[in-house]
Amino acid sequence: MQVAVVLYEGVTALDAVGPYEVLRSMPDTSIRMVGPAVGPVMTDSGVLTLGVSHTYASTMTPDVVVVPGSERGTLAAMNDPELLGWLTAVHATTRWTTSVCSGSLILGAAGLLQGVPATTHWIAQDLLPQVGAIPSPQSRIVHSGKIATAAGVSAGIDLALWLAGELCGREAAEVIQLAIEYDPQPPFDAGHPSKASAEVLAAARERFARSA
Amino acid sequence: MQVAVVLYEGVTALDAVGPYEVLRSMPDTSIRMVGPAVGPVMTDSGVLTLGVSHTYASTMTPDVVVVPGSERGTLAAMNDPELLGWLTAVHATTRWTTSVCSGSLILGAAGLLQGVPATTHWIAQDLLPQVGAIPSPQSRIVHSGKIATAAGVSAGIDLALWLAGELCGREAAEVIQLAIEYDPQPPFDAGHPSKASAEVLAAARERFARSA
Repeated sequence: MQVAVVLYEGVTALDAVGPYEVLRSMPDTSIRMVGPAVGPVMTDSGVLTLGVSHTYASTMTPDVVVVPGSERGTLAAMNDPELLGWLTAVHATTRWTTSVCSGSLILGAAGLLQGVPATTHWIAQDLLPQVGAIPSPQSRIVHSGKIATAAGVSAGIDLALWLAGELCGREAAEVIQLAIEYDPQPPFDAGHPSKASAEVLAAARERFARSA
Repeated sequence: MQVAVVLYEGVTALDAVGPYEVLRSMPDTSIRMVGPAVGPVMTDSGVLTLGVSHTYASTMTPDVVVVPGSERGTLAAMNDPELLGWLTAVHATTRWTTSVCSGSLILGAAGLLQGVPATTHWIAQDLLPQVGAIPSPQSRIVHSGKIATAAGVSAGIDLALWLAGELCGREAAEVIQLAIEYDPQPPFDAGHPSKASAEVLAAARERFARSA
């Protein structure tokens, strides 16, 4: 099985690395970090680079595609004809085409979410209808046909474990969960707008308004 | 505030990127990925590279240090005089010196865990006494003085959020939790040996035996 995780300028590192760390450990699986050219891609911090290992052109039959999101680079990716053309082409033969965070807007820009239930980062839920998708703002993972989308950033880990279960069975997925010791114990409980205080929600909205 | 996340050959990507994604968003904070030389470092998958942004030599007064772990590169890092010398030097002036997963063994190799309660990945708990540390195998985060260690791989996210709370206050940490939508909903509950089935635990042990 071949898994392709897309990288592009401004990608959010954890969106890509969460699913990568899970999916690379599936039995008999090879993983690739794909982009227009092999080499480093700058993430949205402006500090950390992640390396593209394989070009789009050399990766035309992945079984699983993961499109991560970005705090700053989503719009550019939504208008990148090479990325959109590649997504459209490979989607024809994938087993699963997936996204994390605002990556669903990139799937949508490629025309893959017309009438499809989907999710994204909570700050971007309102944008889903603009690409033809049906928002599902209370869901951390949404799947329909062979499209699966995850909520913001860290939700990619949950998506990937669920996907590993679908592809390799529950026991294999649980082995991966144990290997990455994914027994989350957040010290606070503010990870969704429905749980955060009004002050925290306002501050987070302000942060995203500044970075947009 | 300056945060330095250490990268070395064979590092586990999520060990580094989890804390990076949290700590880089603390107010008035700059983050650095540090190593012996600027440029890409291969992770333990043999596929994904992460980029060093700053050398050890140019990063002598970080406020926070994060040492990630590795499935294959821990022993080499424990014997890297440049890394150990840097850790010993900067620890003198850090506010927090921290680790994720087997990164605690690297802190221990630098002599920083003598008589200090600490944790690590569940598979490596038995090795902690060899570097002078007091194992705390049921704890996801252990802190003592200005040393804080986390359990395996994904525990770095919990550690970093806790640390953000200590450094910037609970509200600022909750804003980061909301920004990365860290409202974990694992599809299975096998993330710790105390929760996994005997079959899953045996398979995970076999995986680590093969990679050791």
